[in-house]
Amino acid sequence: MASSSPKIAFLGLGAMGFGMATNLIKLSHPVTGFDVWKPTLERFSAAGGSTATTPRECVRDAPYVVFMVATAAQIMSALFEGPDAAVHELKEGVSLMLCSTGPPEYVPLIQGKLKELGRGDVLVVDAPVSGGTIRAANGTLSIFAAGEEKAVEAAKPILNDMAGSNLWLIPGGLGAGTNVKMVHQVLAGIHIAMTSEAMGFVGKLGLPSKKAFELLKAGEGSSWMFENRTPHLLVEDKTIYSALNIIVKDIGIVTAGGRSAHFPLFLSSTTEQILASGVGAGLGLVDDANLVGVYLPQDPTAILKLASLPEPLAADNAELRLVEKAMAGVHLAAAAEAMCLAAKVGLDAKTMFEIISTAAGASKMFVKKAPLWLSGEWKSGKTVDDVIAELTEAIEEANRLKYPLHLAGTALQLFELASMKGQGKEPDVAIVRIWDGPNGPLYPRESS
Amino acid sequence: MASSSPKIAFLGLGAMGFGMATNLIKLSHPVTGFDVWKPTLERFSAAGGSTATTPRECVRDAPYVVFMVATAAQIMSALFEGPDAAVHELKEGVSLMLCSTGPPEYVPLIQGKLKELGRGDVLVVDAPVSGGTIRAANGTLSIFAAGEEKAVEAAKPILNDMAGSNLWLIPGGLGAGTNVKMVHQVLAGIHIAMTSEAMGFVGKLGLPSKKAFELLKAGEGSSWMFENRTPHLLVEDKTIYSALNIIVKDIGIVTAGGRSAHFPLFLSSTTEQILASGVGAGLGLVDDANLVGVYLPQDPTAILKLASLPEPLAADNAELRLVEKAMAGVHLAAAAEAMCLAAKVGLDAKTMFEIISTAAGASKMFVKKAPLWLSGEWKSGKTVDDVIAELTEAIEEANRLKYPLHLAGTALQLFELASMKGQGKEPDVAIVRIWDGPNGPLYPRESS
Repeated sequence: MASSSPKIAFLGLGAMGFGMATNLIKLSHPVTGFDVWKPTLERFSAAGGSTATTPRECVRDAPYVVFMVATAAQIMSALFEGPDAAVHELKEGVSLMLCSTGPPEYVPLIQGKLKELGRGDVLVVDAPVSGGTIRAANGTLSIFAAGEEKAVEAAKPILNDMAGSNLWLIPGGLGAGTNVKMVHQVLAGIHIAMTSEAMGFVGKLGLPSKKAFELLKAGEGSSWMFENRTPHLLVEDKTIYSALNIIVKDIGIVTAGGRSAHFPLFLSSTTEQILASGVGAGLGLVDDANLVGVYLPQDPTAILKLASLPEPLAADNAELRLVEKAMAGVHLAAAAEAMCLAAKVGLDAKTMFEIISTAAGASKMFVKKAPLWLSGEWKSGKTVDDVIAELTEAIEEANRLKYPLHLAGTALQLFELASMKGQGKEPDVAIVRIWDGPNGPLYPRESS
Repeated sequence: MASSSPKIAFLGLGAMGFGMATNLIKLSHPVTGFDVWKPTLERFSAAGGSTATTPRECVRDAPYVVFMVATAAQIMSALFEGPDAAVHELKEGVSLMLCSTGPPEYVPLIQGKLKELGRGDVLVVDAPVSGGTIRAANGTLSIFAAGEEKAVEAAKPILNDMAGSNLWLIPGGLGAGTNVKMVHQVLAGIHIAMTSEAMGFVGKLGLPSKKAFELLKAGEGSSWMFENRTPHLLVEDKTIYSALNIIVKDIGIVTAGGRSAHFPLFLSSTTEQILASGVGAGLGLVDDANLVGVYLPQDPTAILKLASLPEPLAADNAELRLVEKAMAGVHLAAAAEAMCLAAKVGLDAKTMFEIISTAAGASKMFVKKAPLWLSGEWKSGKTVDDVIAELTEAIEEANRLKYPLHLAGTALQLFELASMKGQGKEPDVAIVRIWDGPNGPLYPRESS
């Protein structure tokens, strides 16, 4: 239980922010909330919070300020634009926690602008979060905190109350926390899209979807996202757990990060286009599990209908195994893409492994294979060519059905590229060689 | 004008086959047609042809047999299966022209099966065609003929009557003609999909589509397919010039060829998934220009509506230029993918350049850039990093609009890969380096 005296200003009371802010109230902090959506303020008041009608009023006298608005642009606006901006009233030496997910360059940009305005005293912390609304509300979010030591120390009491044991202190200064989130979202984004690709394939194959989900969940192709999202498709459920537009924004940050680092991110790019197709089909504001509609445009509720199929399904059913092979192949390539990007932007690979393997970006393949990249002991049950054979099986069946396997198709080309470059007989994790630059291999690396 | 005496058996009177067969009639050949679709036989009869009700009856006494059915499986069936199969009545020393597009291995397979059955006397020619229904009907199709010299010589009079000056004699034996067609279809397929991606982008940007088409057609991003298909979108036209399912089948042959050669074909794979999405959206049997519906699912007739916009549009309009940059970047990468596959399967690069640059697989970028690969004089106005910058501009605007650029997204990753490997400052055509194997560079090569 934290001390109850210092005021916390909390800006951005959306699905995540509302839970985070009310959790702080439960921990006896006096919290003043701000949001542009007025009904939320009423709910927040009912939950025991104070409310403010402008950012400026919200931050008045608060030694702690948390930003949890949707975008970096919204922070810039609330902080700097016009007479109601927060900057006019920021307390001397205030601890400013930037929890929104933005592009890597935005946090240093905000600090720069504060300094320009003579507010070098503000203690900025780059503190993006992950974990979903439930963990937001019970104070166990993963938080990736970075910044000057003094700033991180000042924010720690509040960050601890939001993260519990899931507070990660990321070295590298402002932007490093955002980089961690970015790399994490490579996996989150690909796995969300792959969940739809896989369950759409289940639907196209006409398999009993509930049983298929249970079996796939237990297999090597599973991911945290797959386990988390698929249940939304198996029952009639219009709840928006996480709107498609959120992962659209996040994967946009990933691909922009790839572009600014001149680093190819094939699966992230494929994911971005699938997600854009989802928005184009009118799915931006609904739960991201509905992305399956892009894969089954003529029958988007196929999974729901197949959930009640009474037919038995064996774990070694050949069609089901095709879905699993597609998932495993994509998740292995995704793990490689993410860990190579982590290395490229200078993040510590071991820390990234620890963060991701217990977070929403985890997959069975990631947890199993990523340690091999760190240790350099590339002993794996399969070769690159073995994965090619498995993905090929899945793709040939999908071709026969005229079902699009966007991600599995891209993953296959990546493994083919590795094979063509001479790594066909090497362990499957040699796929990371694709991202080696002229300066030598990215992996193995124990730490950066 | 050919001699009128020897009978030609023509199996497969679809959109292409009907034109080819009636053209032969016009050239005074006696032609007996067969098709499973009875109304076609009546039309064929009215056009001056004889008709047969079984393959066996069709080929009786014919020294020339042309197969122009839709798939290799249909040839196998008509030639070998059951009591009505053609094989029972093939004339001694018959010239058998296989003009359908099938996978590279199918032609040698057919010859093998004929030999097994004691019909080593049949003169098999691998003779896939390209050029569309108009050129089919006026005898100017591109035909890629390969096989034993004796077989090709025997077929030549008929092939000449179908191809005019567009008959290509491909060295390499049976399968080489099919390989040429396969490589050609890499470009045909990508350009068909890119036509939809580009015109969908025009629609999303809300540009006057007719004027945009005219300007894009004149620019460096144009392709034969773009010029040929786009007009179908600018007027109300339900004609099926080429059903989507045809290019779906052809690109399936391309990606299967890539898999059997263990050769990565990123853009072909992306195209395959886009096309599968089109089939999944119910577009398999309509003209392939309708693929734009996959890009604009909520407004598939946007292009038609925008065609009548009276607004002027400057050639240097910034939004239009984004579309052109996306097209040019994709077409350059597609040209590289096709020419590298050609080299990989042992085709002569110079011949491939000559064939493609005058055929339906041509693009402005192909015609401009492919000669540089042959000559090795890689002087180009742009670097790899320049193309990255152009594709990035297009993709960032598409991201903003949540419009999917499947092909441009994939192309960008390919250029990023080249840049990451150290080729960023090299001429843009250095993109081919991606496909170099451990045995050294694929290009430059004057001839294979």
